[in-house]
Amino acid sequence: MNWPAVAALPKSTPVVIPIAALEQHGHHMPVFTDSLLMGEVARRAEAELKDKVLFTPLMWLGNSEHHMDFPGTMTAAPRVYLDLLTNLIENMIAHGFQRILLINGHGGNHVPGQQVVFELRQKYRQRNDLLLLSATYWLLGGKPNEVDSSLEQNRMGHACEWETSMMLRIRPDLVGDLKQTARVEWGNPFEPGSRGWITKERTPTGHIGYPTNATAEKGETLFRVFTADVVSYINRMLAWDGFSWSG
Amino acid sequence: MNWPAVAALPKSTPVVIPIAALEQHGHHMPVFTDSLLMGEVARRAEAELKDKVLFTPLMWLGNSEHHMDFPGTMTAAPRVYLDLLTNLIENMIAHGFQRILLINGHGGNHVPGQQVVFELRQKYRQRNDLLLLSATYWLLGGKPNEVDSSLEQNRMGHACEWETSMMLRIRPDLVGDLKQTARVEWGNPFEPGSRGWITKERTPTGHIGYPTNATAEKGETLFRVFTADVVSYINRMLAWDGFSWSG
Amino acid sequence: MNWPAVAALPKSTPVVIPIAALEQHGHHMPVFTDSLLMGEVARRAEAELKDKVLFTPLMWLGNSEHHMDFPGTMTAAPRVYLDLLTNLIENMIAHGFQRILLINGHGGNHVPGQQVVFELRQKYRQRNDLLLLSATYWLLGGKPNEVDSSLEQNRMGHACEWETSMMLRIRPDLVGDLKQTARVEWGNPFEPGSRGWITKERTPTGHIGYPTNATAEKGETLFRVFTADVVSYINRMLAWDGFSWSG
Amino acid sequence: MNWPAVAALPKSTPVVIPIAALEQHGHHMPVFTDSLLMGEVARRAEAELKDKVLFTPLMWLGNSEHHMDFPGTMTAAPRVYLDLLTNLIENMIAHGFQRILLINGHGGNHVPGQQVVFELRQKYRQRNDLLLLSATYWLLGGKPNEVDSSLEQNRMGHACEWETSMMLRIRPDLVGDLKQTARVEWGNPFEPGSRGWITKERTPTGHIGYPTNATAEKGETLFRVFTADVVSYINRMLAWDGFSWSG
Amino acid sequence: MNWPAVAALPKSTPVVIPIAALEQHGHHMPVFTDSLLMGEVARRAEAELKDKVLFTPLMWLGNSEHHMDFPGTMTAAPRVYLDLLTNLIENMIAHGFQRILLINGHGGNHVPGQQVVFELRQKYRQRNDLLLLSATYWLLGGKPNEVDSSLEQNRMGHACEWETSMMLRIRPDLVGDLKQTARVEWGNPFEPGSRGWITKERTPTGHIGYPTNATAEKGETLFRVFTADVVSYINRMLAWDGFSWSG
Amino acid sequence: MNWPAVAALPKSTPVVIPIAALEQHGHHMPVFTDSLLMGEVARRAEAELKDKVLFTPLMWLGNSEHHMDFPGTMTAAPRVYLDLLTNLIENMIAHGFQRILLINGHGGNHVPGQQVVFELRQKYRQRNDLLLLSATYWLLGGKPNEVDSSLEQNRMGHACEWETSMMLRIRPDLVGDLKQTARVEWGNPFEPGSRGWITKERTPTGHIGYPTNATAEKGETLFRVFTADVVSYINRMLAWDGFSWSG
Repeated sequence: MNWPAVAALPKSTPVVIPIAALEQHGHHMPVFTDSLLMGEVARRAEAELKDKVLFTPLMWLGNSEHHMDFPGTMTAAPRVYLDLLTNLIENMIAHGFQRILLINGHGGNHVPGQQVVFELRQKYRQRNDLLLLSATYWLLGGKPNEVDSSLEQNRMGHACEWETSMMLRIRPDLVGDLKQTARVEWGNPFEPGSRGWITKERTPTGHIGYPTNATAEKGETLFRVFTADVVSYINRMLAWDGFSWSG
Repeated sequence: MNWPAVAALPKSTPVVIPIAALEQHGHHMPVFTDSLLMGEVARRAEAELKDKVLFTPLMWLGNSEHHMDFPGTMTAAPRVYLDLLTNLIENMIAHGFQRILLINGHGGNHVPGQQVVFELRQKYRQRNDLLLLSATYWLLGGKPNEVDSSLEQNRMGHACEWETSMMLRIRPDLVGDLKQTARVEWGNPFEPGSRGWITKERTPTGHIGYPTNATAEKGETLFRVFTADVVSYINRMLAWDGFSWSG
Repeated sequence: MNWPAVAALPKSTPVVIPIAALEQHGHHMPVFTDSLLMGEVARRAEAELKDKVLFTPLMWLGNSEHHMDFPGTMTAAPRVYLDLLTNLIENMIAHGFQRILLINGHGGNHVPGQQVVFELRQKYRQRNDLLLLSATYWLLGGKPNEVDSSLEQNRMGHACEWETSMMLRIRPDLVGDLKQTARVEWGNPFEPGSRGWITKERTPTGHIGYPTNATAEKGETLFRVFTADVVSYINRMLAWDGFSWSG
Repeated sequence: MNWPAVAALPKSTPVVIPIAALEQHGHHMPVFTDSLLMGEVARRAEAELKDKVLFTPLMWLGNSEHHMDFPGTMTAAPRVYLDLLTNLIENMIAHGFQRILLINGHGGNHVPGQQVVFELRQKYRQRNDLLLLSATYWLLGGKPNEVDSSLEQNRMGHACEWETSMMLRIRPDLVGDLKQTARVEWGNPFEPGSRGWITKERTPTGHIGYPTNATAEKGETLFRVFTADVVSYINRMLAWDGFSWSG
Repeated sequence: MNWPAVAALPKSTPVVIPIAALEQHGHHMPVFTDSLLMGEVARRAEAELKDKVLFTPLMWLGNSEHHMDFPGTMTAAPRVYLDLLTNLIENMIAHGFQRILLINGHGGNHVPGQQVVFELRQKYRQRNDLLLLSATYWLLGGKPNEVDSSLEQNRMGHACEWETSMMLRIRPDLVGDLKQTARVEWGNPFEPGSRGWITKERTPTGHIGYPTNATAEKGETLFRVFTADVVSYINRMLAWDGFSWSG
Repeated sequence: MNWPAVAALPKSTPVVIPIAALEQHGHHMPVFTDSLLMGEVARRAEAELKDKVLFTPLMWLGNSEHHMDFPGTMTAAPRVYLDLLTNLIENMIAHGFQRILLINGHGGNHVPGQQVVFELRQKYRQRNDLLLLSATYWLLGGKPNEVDSSLEQNRMGHACEWETSMMLRIRPDLVGDLKQTARVEWGNPFEPGSRGWITKERTPTGHIGYPTNATAEKGETLFRVFTADVVSYINRMLAWDGFSWSG
């Protein structure tokens, strides 16, 4: 798109900003995994929603400090990541858009996304036409293991059955030997509740979960479930008719 | 306590830092509500755990920018609040303590607490003896409406049935006329997922939920359920024996 | 108070924000000393001034980095403390109040309080109805040793005759064995003028001054002198009729 | 690549971080122009240098505040951009790499790149094995108009003959009608010397230079000249044998 | 001096950093007044102390935001000024010096100087050989009106009898018509205690005090008194033999 | 000047802010070299331009971190220096001036000056009457070695033939024994392009270039060439008639 094309869009057009990461994904998956998967979900959603929604390019740099003990990981420092997300959203506010969603494909970005939409809504508190949202694609309610009972996991891990299956669906050439992978349990007795952790506390290889039996078929199921959730979420943005109370 | 008494504690003693807020709680509840309730939960937990745990005073200033359209609310700016929580935890790290919990009694502090324990664990990534936790007392798994079926709500609101009942239990003199209160629905079609909001978008009076039928009996149930959760959580801190993987 | 009660106050009502600290006070005094004493002075002042003035809760976290070599001390980092005080005052400006006082009960907060009221007055330089003040209760001109000649000190120390006497007046149960305390001189040849110091440079036990002969009677005298000064100061806020020059 | 592959690289391997922008490029070019062109130069350079060099993904978010009056532009705030570049380089320092180049494809990133390598070299001043570089691909000495005399420009503009020609070479489908484009002069009487400007001061359409006669053939020449410069620069990084003086 | 000469100095040499301001000084005095006066005091002190002490150049940019309603005033923003003073002192710590004094000639710098030596002493708390001081030349105890009873003022104002007299002593050519000057009272009912103010609240012309009867003779007296105080203070730095307690 | 004199200036008057440094200049030159030379160029330019232009005092503190391994160097930290330059320019914007130039006499300030005028132009993007410029006096196009063929250098070094000659012209008493100086080559194979470096990597004595044959005559030539460039640049500021496009 060129700038006159963006200028011509209605200001009520939802803007979707995909965010992900570049970080270690175990011995069997590439560092670009989260960005490839989020990109695929975004592409599928965009194909369904067409011109009703504006998607920006995916921001591949995430909040991945917890993986920094594994070479190849790139990360914004935590506060810089807050600033970065803030800038992405404020760019779109500056261009007049009113409904903006960070759609996230990396666990470490989930809390920063929440923090930033909170901060920005306060900053623009005089506005009553601003809808600022942040969501992680696998935490929108979808239950893939209710669709495909062969899925061993019922929650997201890291470089796990779910992520490996999705990667087998789109880029099998980038997936290593799954027979070498071990089952690594989540192993955090402090949930619910939030613990500050670094990855090497929890896994020596870098993955968490059960990647061994990942398949492309499972991956397709996962993409369908998650894409449906994202599309549904954006449809709610389209349907939104403002606030009950205007103060 | 004086300083030699603190110096004499084992460094493995869990330190619990209660955090809450001073913010509007509708027409029928005082601005100090969250701090009074969190204080009561902390006192009950401390009474059970005794000398095994060190409780600091409660930090009453919270992240309450979303309530600032209602006079009397006090708040740290969002980034200042991150810094403030960071300081509270780092004080205790400086004194040598290894297991530190932010126990939270205000919704707006939930995400900042998570952000801060993430940031600090990364900062001290060379340490393998550091357990940094953040938890909100009503989000630790307790299901009070399974204990008392007369509870109308099954989730926390704001100045709602749950909070009003607890306040009736400890400070009925501070609760106004409940007959004047209305039922205010949560009204956020963007859950799960996170929306940046300000309170006046969602409620003209300042409360969300069903305070009208609050009772002190319900309050006692709520305190028992939540205190049990907090005590259980801290017991897991006491039982913790370090990381599976030391890198 | 609930928020409608705060909203109903005249905007010219003086707002008083008590600030103190949680820090080591030698072998014989608790870490919460400054907050207990400032709280008592504030309570006595509030009792005299009644509804003419709005007192916020006391902020117990202070600027106490110089005491951090003594376990149990909690502190905001120096710049965070400036931000924290800034937030407290700006909350009240946001709610429309025009006359705001930080009343301080900890030596380490004195300079930050001055810095912050300077900064904020500049930030709101377009306003000509804003009175921003910062004051330390024992530095308002009161001369307690002119009232009670048995007082050995003629200036404030730390966990000293003055502070220990006031604590004996309100919480004698928290005061340890005074016979064990030594006379510790101020020992700073660089006054007047300002020296950056850390507490352990000046005292091995944590106190400075002569606590040994503290009594509750002396404490009562001190409270009366200091409370009178604070009340007088706030009365000047009430009497204030604006600036001579409006530019 | 997965993380063990990155871990296996020699620490003396040059790391090249391509940076560009997403910003208006007039009526006839897409907002992603700089990123597409820098990506092509990086791909060509990588193809020549093969495994001797590690290329990271291209960071498409640049320092484009001066274009923000044109919708569709995205930008990091200037200081956030400094932090972002700092993080990208420090990621690689954390993984042990010693020779790091920001290769830049957007004018607005040129000064920030210089600022950041200055700052980081100072921060790591104890290291004598660290080579931190920043370079803009068309400012490495190449003189394309000496190679192809049909080129009208002898310097880079914006969405100009040079950029349009390169885009025609790789993505002609994204180039609009060149007959509609005007000649826009550089028009800055304050060179040499640096003027703070915003784009709309200098051009109403968003382009600067002479795009009308751009051709794919000119584009191929430009890519060859600039790629040769980048390869030569990286070869100097490979040949570098440390400092003359170690202090 | 060249760098080998600085390198040859004993690390115990006191370093004195004069700081002042460039700000409005009424209708009758130049904006550079504070810097000229502080420079004269520093030169006289240096002449007495000779090679025992290292004086840096005077930093003429001060914390003068309160004067910004008067054209010609230059100022660092308040936090930038804290950073600036921090840098000046840390430069000297980096070069190994142990005894460092900010000697100040502008009222608005007094609190920032105190804040900064506090902050830096905490930052370098592991050091037990570091003496960091900040002092304002007319607040070191000198009582000029006890020396010359014709002085009408007994405290410093602004562009007042004291400053005007000193300027008449060194640069009478820069002093305007004193007959036109009015008596402007200090007019702040909130002393002791600290009020955030801007200059135009207190004076329409920019001066505070009684400049009309200023004379060069009074100026000489003032310089002698203040210089003696500064020399005495630096002599205490020379005599300093470290801390009583090393912790 | 006093403040009413500044207030009386037309707002279109160019304001020139000279910036330089205090840093090591080898064994044979004083640390104040850059400030003395920039001061001389500014004085000569001011003499030519007279009252048409307002010159502020020279800011002698620069961005000299790369020289900090040599005692006596003083520097603002890199980001503080950006803030400092920002403040200097914003002071003048606050007083209503529209045409502001940072004229620079130290290599390390060149990039920060560019960064700051970029940042500020963006911040004040609503203004269409603001001309913010930054320039380094020896990089304005002057070719002194075309004027005096005895000059060995054709570019600026550090404490080199050019700087030493200029110092011999104005302060020969501060120049040491040139026979002891060596020829030190620039020795940076990464130009064009920008390398983060520290001075001790490139020179053990602190100078770069050929100071041995410096003379006062060469110095006079250099001053004339550079002053002419600066005067010409400021004349372009005077002649400026606003923007071509106002958006």
